[in-house]
Formats: sequence, structure tokens, C-alpha cells
Amino acid sequence: MSNDPKSFPQPESWLPHRVSYGETDAMGVVYYAQYLHFFERSRSLFIRDRGMSYREVESRGIFLPVREAQCRYRSPARFDDLIWVRVGIREWGRASMVFVYEILAEDKTRLLATGMTEHACLNDENRPVGVPAWLKDLFSGTPPSCP
Amino acid sequence: MSNDPKSFPQPESWLPHRVSYGETDAMGVVYYAQYLHFFERSRSLFIRDRGMSYREVESRGIFLPVREAQCRYRSPARFDDLIWVRVGIREWGRASMVFVYEILAEDKTRLLATGMTEHACLNDENRPVGVPAWLKDLFSGTPPSCP
Amino acid sequence: MSNDPKSFPQPESWLPHRVSYGETDAMGVVYYAQYLHFFERSRSLFIRDRGMSYREVESRGIFLPVREAQCRYRSPARFDDLIWVRVGIREWGRASMVFVYEILAEDKTRLLATGMTEHACLNDENRPVGVPAWLKDLFSGTPPSCP
Amino acid sequence: MSNDPKSFPQPESWLPHRVSYGETDAMGVVYYAQYLHFFERSRSLFIRDRGMSYREVESRGIFLPVREAQCRYRSPARFDDLIWVRVGIREWGRASMVFVYEILAEDKTRLLATGMTEHACLNDENRPVGVPAWLKDLFSGTPPSCP
Repeated sequence: MSNDPKSFPQPESWLPHRVSYGETDAMGVVYYAQYLHFFERSRSLFIRDRGMSYREVESRGIFLPVREAQCRYRSPARFDDLIWVRVGIREWGRASMVFVYEILAEDKTRLLATGMTEHACLNDENRPVGVPAWLKDLFSGTPPSCP
Repeated sequence: MSNDPKSFPQPESWLPHRVSYGETDAMGVVYYAQYLHFFERSRSLFIRDRGMSYREVESRGIFLPVREAQCRYRSPARFDDLIWVRVGIREWGRASMVFVYEILAEDKTRLLATGMTEHACLNDENRPVGVPAWLKDLFSGTPPSCP
Repeated sequence: MSNDPKSFPQPESWLPHRVSYGETDAMGVVYYAQYLHFFERSRSLFIRDRGMSYREVESRGIFLPVREAQCRYRSPARFDDLIWVRVGIREWGRASMVFVYEILAEDKTRLLATGMTEHACLNDENRPVGVPAWLKDLFSGTPPSCP
Repeated sequence: MSNDPKSFPQPESWLPHRVSYGETDAMGVVYYAQYLHFFERSRSLFIRDRGMSYREVESRGIFLPVREAQCRYRSPARFDDLIWVRVGIREWGRASMVFVYEILAEDKTRLLATGMTEHACLNDENRPVGVPAWLKDLFSGTPPSCP
């Protein structure tokens, strides 16, 4: 997987996050499972930044459960650090999509972690469906076509 | 509130719990919000020990959301400690109930924390209802009456 | 406990927080233990707003572990809701202090929850010490006195 | 990555885990980041089953922070489910090791998730060191050699 900052997929969103005490562990750093929680927060922001909320996506009968998640830890984050979560979509399948992430220190240059999540696209009967055009357009940042 | 170990309400259940790394924080001890999670695990065990699961309670149209929670922290628990969560019901209201808890060290004598949760009794339309007799009998450990 | 919005102790801080999926539970609302996590985030902001970080407090050899926590749940918060956590200090003991909290909906008028946390004041040998004057001045919003 | 149940690396450990309400999310299933928490619980059990605790490993000056984590989600787990976490070591590097995991339903046949974590081996100065022989022997289930 290439998470090269120079080739990060567009459009992208940047979530600022202040590390809480509850996110750290006895090693004094952010607990490793919390990074997946950070990824989720940034996905929701990504959708909001495109003009919709994930709640609205669900109310249209589309669900995007995670099928796979991966994270590579490079440098730890600590309590009270301000970190950035960068998020974009790297790949579209017929009934799936892949988000990629970078976690960066406050200065936005030091890379703390990278990761990805693959999502299935399901309807409200829990069955795989092709990604609807409105969703792909929205998430791709394509302006809605004229009526 | 009296949580005197000698007068702990009966029936009671005891949940053993091994402290994970993810439950600790940068102070090296269990993060304070986790105690409410421990309480919840012990409530579910309490219900299972009485012969039902909370899932079954909900499927009968009864919901018991927490209306108030309180915890007093006496002595910290650390990673890999085996702790015990003791749980019972101290009080019944017409449409509510109060669970009480003690968290003890592995030896079951050293008290680490005490607490309580108050629960409303709601139906599936989210409205307060009197505690059903079957639920009160079950949680009180009263054997079911003959048909 | 009186958490009357009109008499909320001053100074105060307001933390905005966007509810994540990971903070919700199968009832579709924010899991009850998460409120204590919200309280902690707001305490850290309160300290930062006064011009210091809790990390700096600790590096000066003062630790403020939670001795008691309490939360009253009035109305649930849901995924993607923007909520506000209001925080202030209600009371000072010789070697302790009490923070109080209100959780409000996005409009800042609908009250979702109220709560408190009592903190011991410990030195780096884990022993209770009187609250240092610099800390009380700082947290009270008293401008530092001239040298 | 092959997580074929038939070729699961030996020795292995099996952690039983009862899903709590706090581990679920508004989709009604276990939140995806919790699986990494399950993995951690099973790692600690794996070490305890070999006759040591991870706390003891750390007190000998060896730290095993996660360098990479991955999880593939096949079928969701729900509140109150009893699940099993199977754990073993698939691979040893000079200064690293790879744990693999399977999450199974109560019947131990239905596979819910698979995953891996790669760990660096660090000394107490945070520097990579070769995996000590005592640790590799211990984790490999090799009986300690005669003195």
C-alpha cells in the first residue's frame, strides 16, 4: 500500500484531534485500537465535508460496514497532543470502497501512523449492492449534475 | 449510600475480570470511566445468573436505560490484575431500580471501588412502565410461582 | 447537587464534541460510560483555557486522580450529534476539588446530562497535599499576582 | 496471509469473551476497533498460559509495542454473545514477532474475524533488540532447558 503524502487521493479531509487521557494506556501512549476510532471520526468528517452525514447515508438505505482494517504505527502520540487525521478514498469496487488514512503530528509533517479500511456497500436488507451513483459522486467531490 | 460488604443486598453475583492494557491509562491504572463498563458487565451476569439474558429482557419489550451512575474510587487496579465485580439490587421503585456494586481485588477482601446505577423501566415506546412482576421476581431470585 | 445553569460556577469552559459511532451502543445512543470520558476531555480543555496543560500540572509534581464521579442522564445523544460539555469548579477542599459538568445539545439550551467529579490532590509520592496556591489561582482564573 | 484454521500455529490459546453492551455500536454489533482490544486480551492470555505475565516481560526490560495491526471482519458479533479468541505466533523476526488471531462464535466453528499484529521487540531505552532466547522459548512453548 502506498500512503505517500505526495500522492494522497483527492478529495481529502483533515480532522484535528486532541488526545485524551482515556485514549492512552499504561505505556503512556495512545492505545493501538484507538487509531481505528480516529479513522472512523475522520470518515464521518470526510462525508460531512462533502455535504452529507453518514446518518443521512444510512437513512437512504445504504450501509458501509468495515470489511477490513489495517494500521501501521510509526511513532506514538501522547496525552494532550494535537494530532491530525487525513482521510481520502483510494479505490472504488463495484460494491465496496477503500478509505486511506494518515495520522500526523500537530505540525502536519511528522507521520505517526498510516492505515486503511475497506467497506462493503449494503442495502437495508444487509445485501451487497453496487455503490449508488449519488454516493460515488458525492464522495468523489463531483459537483451534483444539473437537473 | 451504604455499601457495607456485610449488608450487601441479596441475591448477588460475582464477575471475575482480568484488566487489559486497553483499560489502563497513562497513569498506569484502570481509566476511571472503565468502572462503569465493569458495572455493566456485572449487571448482565447478574441477569444471566438469574436465568435470563438482558437481550431477552429487551425482546420482551422492557428496556432499562441508566438514569444515574456513581462510582467512588478507593484504590487503583492495574494491568493484568484479576478483579471481582460484586453486584446486587439495593432498591426497587415503581418504574425503576437501583443496582449497587463493589470492585474487589483478587483476594476478594480489599475494596477498590463502590458504585451504583439507577435504571428507568421503559416499554418499547420509550415510556416509563411499572416494573413487570416477572422481572422483579426474576431479579429478586424468587422462584417462579406455580401456574 | 445543584447544577442550575443560571448559577454555573465561574470561570467555565465549553467543549464542542461530535459523537462518533464508536461512542454509541446497540441502543443507538451514546454509551453511558462515555460521558465520563467527555467530562475528562472538558477538564483538560478547562485547564488549557486557563493557560496550562494537565501534562504541565503533572510535570510540576501534582496529580489529580478522580476520587468520585457521578452522572445524571436526562436525554440521550446520538451518532453525529454535536454536543457541548460545560465545565467549571464548584468547590475547593484543602487537598481536593470538585468539577461540575453539563452536557448540552447543539443549541446549548437542551440539557442532556449533568455530573461531577471529585479529585484528590497528590504529590509525586502519591500522598495528599494541600492544593498549591498557583494551581488554585490558575484554575480560579485569578490573574497571576505581580512579583 | 493464511489464517487457515487447519494450520493454526502452535502453541495456541483460546480466550472466551462475553460481548458487553459497551463494546457494541449503533449498528447493533461489536464496534470494529474492539476487535483489536480482543486481540490484546488474547495475547496476554497466551503469555499467561505459557507461565508468565506481560507485566513480568516488561519488568525484565522487554517491551513489545504493536507495529502493525490488521483485522478482516467476516460476520458480526452481538451483545451477550460468547465468542472465542484464538491466538498464536506465526512468525519470528530477529527483533520482532507476528501474532495471528481468529475470532469464533460460541460453537468454535463459525469464523467471525481473523487478524494479525506485528510487534517490535524493544529494550527499556526504547531501542530494538533481538528477541531474547528466554522469551522465544517461552512463547514457543519450549520447556526451559536444564540448568
